[in-house]
Amino acid sequence: MRRSRRSTCRRCRGGGGRDAAPAGGGRRAAAQADGCDRRHEPRDAGTCPRLWLRRRSRADAGRREAAPAHPPCRRADPGRIQPNARLVFEAGHSHRGAARSAQPFKRCEVTMDFVTVEGRTLRDALKPLLEVARTRKTIPVMGHVRLDFDGASLRLTANDLDVEAVTVVDAIDGAGEWSICLPARELGGIARVAGPMPVRIEPGGGEAGHVATIRLGDGEAVYTLGQLPASDFPGRVATPGKVIERFGNGLLAECLAKVAAYVSAEETRYYLNGVCWHGGPKGLRFVATDGHRLACCRYDAEPCERPARIIPRQTVALILRHMAGADVTVRDDAGGRLSLVFESAGLTLRSKLIDGAFPDFDRVIPQPGPFTLALKRADMLAAIDRLGVFGRSAFSWKVKLWGEAGRLALSRRDDGGAVTVRTASDWPPATAGADLPPIGVNGRYLADMLRDCAGEASLALTGPSDPFLIRDTDERMTRVLMPMRV
Amino acid sequence: MRRSRRSTCRRCRGGGGRDAAPAGGGRRAAAQADGCDRRHEPRDAGTCPRLWLRRRSRADAGRREAAPAHPPCRRADPGRIQPNARLVFEAGHSHRGAARSAQPFKRCEVTMDFVTVEGRTLRDALKPLLEVARTRKTIPVMGHVRLDFDGASLRLTANDLDVEAVTVVDAIDGAGEWSICLPARELGGIARVAGPMPVRIEPGGGEAGHVATIRLGDGEAVYTLGQLPASDFPGRVATPGKVIERFGNGLLAECLAKVAAYVSAEETRYYLNGVCWHGGPKGLRFVATDGHRLACCRYDAEPCERPARIIPRQTVALILRHMAGADVTVRDDAGGRLSLVFESAGLTLRSKLIDGAFPDFDRVIPQPGPFTLALKRADMLAAIDRLGVFGRSAFSWKVKLWGEAGRLALSRRDDGGAVTVRTASDWPPATAGADLPPIGVNGRYLADMLRDCAGEASLALTGPSDPFLIRDTDERMTRVLMPMRV
Repeated sequence: MRRSRRSTCRRCRGGGGRDAAPAGGGRRAAAQADGCDRRHEPRDAGTCPRLWLRRRSRADAGRREAAPAHPPCRRADPGRIQPNARLVFEAGHSHRGAARSAQPFKRCEVTMDFVTVEGRTLRDALKPLLEVARTRKTIPVMGHVRLDFDGASLRLTANDLDVEAVTVVDAIDGAGEWSICLPARELGGIARVAGPMPVRIEPGGGEAGHVATIRLGDGEAVYTLGQLPASDFPGRVATPGKVIERFGNGLLAECLAKVAAYVSAEETRYYLNGVCWHGGPKGLRFVATDGHRLACCRYDAEPCERPARIIPRQTVALILRHMAGADVTVRDDAGGRLSLVFESAGLTLRSKLIDGAFPDFDRVIPQPGPFTLALKRADMLAAIDRLGVFGRSAFSWKVKLWGEAGRLALSRRDDGGAVTVRTASDWPPATAGADLPPIGVNGRYLADMLRDCAGEASLALTGPSDPFLIRDTDERMTRVLMPMRV
Repeated sequence: MRRSRRSTCRRCRGGGGRDAAPAGGGRRAAAQADGCDRRHEPRDAGTCPRLWLRRRSRADAGRREAAPAHPPCRRADPGRIQPNARLVFEAGHSHRGAARSAQPFKRCEVTMDFVTVEGRTLRDALKPLLEVARTRKTIPVMGHVRLDFDGASLRLTANDLDVEAVTVVDAIDGAGEWSICLPARELGGIARVAGPMPVRIEPGGGEAGHVATIRLGDGEAVYTLGQLPASDFPGRVATPGKVIERFGNGLLAECLAKVAAYVSAEETRYYLNGVCWHGGPKGLRFVATDGHRLACCRYDAEPCERPARIIPRQTVALILRHMAGADVTVRDDAGGRLSLVFESAGLTLRSKLIDGAFPDFDRVIPQPGPFTLALKRADMLAAIDRLGVFGRSAFSWKVKLWGEAGRLALSRRDDGGAVTVRTASDWPPATAGADLPPIGVNGRYLADMLRDCAGEASLALTGPSDPFLIRDTDERMTRVLMPMRV
């Protein structure tokens, strides 16, 4: 703990009726109790003609603007001294009945809790937290960020009961050990406008209890924000357990990015609302499906028995945005059975997992059939774009794929009209005497999958009513698409 | 008028019971009437084994893909021939009871209505029209674009009963003189995906009556779209009257851009929902106000008596987007008292005007007061940005401007907290012994106005409860902002 503010107040000199007069707390109230009739902006003691700041030497005077203003002392009950201000009285000083003595000034040392961090550092640290902190009117503290200062670094925590995100910021300066909650949106806005300026955060205490003060730079802007006690903050801080896996060089985000688009958003089958992390005889895999399409990314082919864990889509999105390219360590959460802790440099996520059984996806992945439809990717995407002209309804995105003079042709019919598009891809020739009949797919799903593919893609299929296997040059990926009836 | 398609059909040769067998219309119906059990994509006669296209020489065979397929003829009633196909029978040909003669083929010349335009030209021409055409479920034709082909150029019209927009596109090729309505959104989508390819539009007629065919390039994509008869299209085409004013080099859009942000969106005072174009002893001016702020742009200082015309905000937006930088001629509409015609190269807008009396704005523009607050624009905008951290409610954007040690300071108070910001601008000194008390403004309005200003701005004001005059280096502009009570 460091002592930060030291000032000598003249008004304590000719003290009134009590001994322990100077008190740092209740600044505005103090000024008004003193009979000053102007409304004071917090900490702007200079605007009140009756308040007097300590005398300075000439060398000191140049730093007048830079020196933080000392909260005005007042003749108050010692019991009302704010709890986070620490006063040090000089020995031999009598506050009461002071005739002008050789030592006219009483020196009181006030140590206040505060922390100063750089604006851009704070802004970057708050980014993942702002995505977690939600504004729920029923539980106001959910829209808050918890700040814990331990004397050296500031830890920021957001929690929405499903995910807890923690970032740590190195402090430029600070004093005390304290914890408060501040509104996330406002704090994020302040960090945004601060730019490279230092941001000084002072928790409120004592009478000014629920109001924190945030000061940008050299007092360019001074904010007061309502604060909540840290004890109101939900959840518990993660207690990381044993390491499950270490992903280097952004491998985790890379694998999740390949399957994240296939996670279901349908609430009825809640167990599909996440990415399944699965270990078995076929290796370690991430799998996601919404019932119409499925993507499976095998990042390790070694057999490895591990329980299937379903990581919710919100956590997947956070990892994709804030842990891309980073080394990530995944641990058990020692405090909770159904949760995981993801650690990267600067960000720790503790996420609940989805409590459900992911379907046995190996059973729906088909064996490659007799027909293979090699698709020229850019040409196919342009062709599907041409089909997308009638876009009123998402449900009518049924596209018929059929052969016309040995080429693949696409057609689509809607209330608004119909369209037929020629492509440059070949229609597979008859195999074992059997022609491939026209097949139907959801054009939007097919386009999404083709966009995800690396290099040229091919459609392996058995018949028009069986699931298709979509392959690209990436051997780790398996993609399955269900057909539509034509 | 040009004849475009010429083909000889073999199936007409051994005609059945009737004389005038070949008919171009009702292609799909025709194919199915012939007993073919496959569903035909429109114009894809090649997919039906029973349909036969004319024989080609070897040289011709290479162009097989390029040559448009001839709609299959059928043995039909002559009365059912589609009205826009023109048949020319060869002299001396007998259709009935034809034994194989020296001249086995009947030649029918079919001239069909069509137009071919370049895709990008069509896309650009449709841009303003897509903003006018609205999808109203109760009046389907409002979401359509009217196409009029006169043999040389294609005129496109959209009308939403308030504004009519007309663009003209030069045709690459075309035949007939015809008018139809096609759905705007789908036509816009087709033009978008066409890119530089030619787009061939064929109106439907006869039995295929309500279906138009659009063909991209060399048949890469073929669309069929429901069409509506041109007679359903609302309104009348503008009949431009005498010229009111000619604006050169985008002056009209430039002046409107300066005041457009101040147009009211409040429906109760409908006469403020537009820009007033006013001529009087103070010159020619565009004025807009929403009751809280006012902007006036004088583009000609010469006195000129002219009735005040209120141009609706939708028309102003269209002019800003599609007539920026263009020479615009404004005319009376010979057919309507309360409308104006705006003509620029490639686009003609006919707009109804707002039928109301614009308030006497000269009375609310204040005389410059004794105090002048010179504002450093970039610094002020940064300061207001710092105030905007609490952004929940638009109504609480009240900002107090006050003097602190000779400088302008801003403060704002919200449910979430409070903020005080120092600025680099000077607070005006006391004039005639009177200090300027703190003043209140809507911070968002002030920021918007400062952003619009050219160069540094100044606030001229009489007192805290009088309207402020905001001036910049542009002498033509007058901006007024109403204060808020602090």
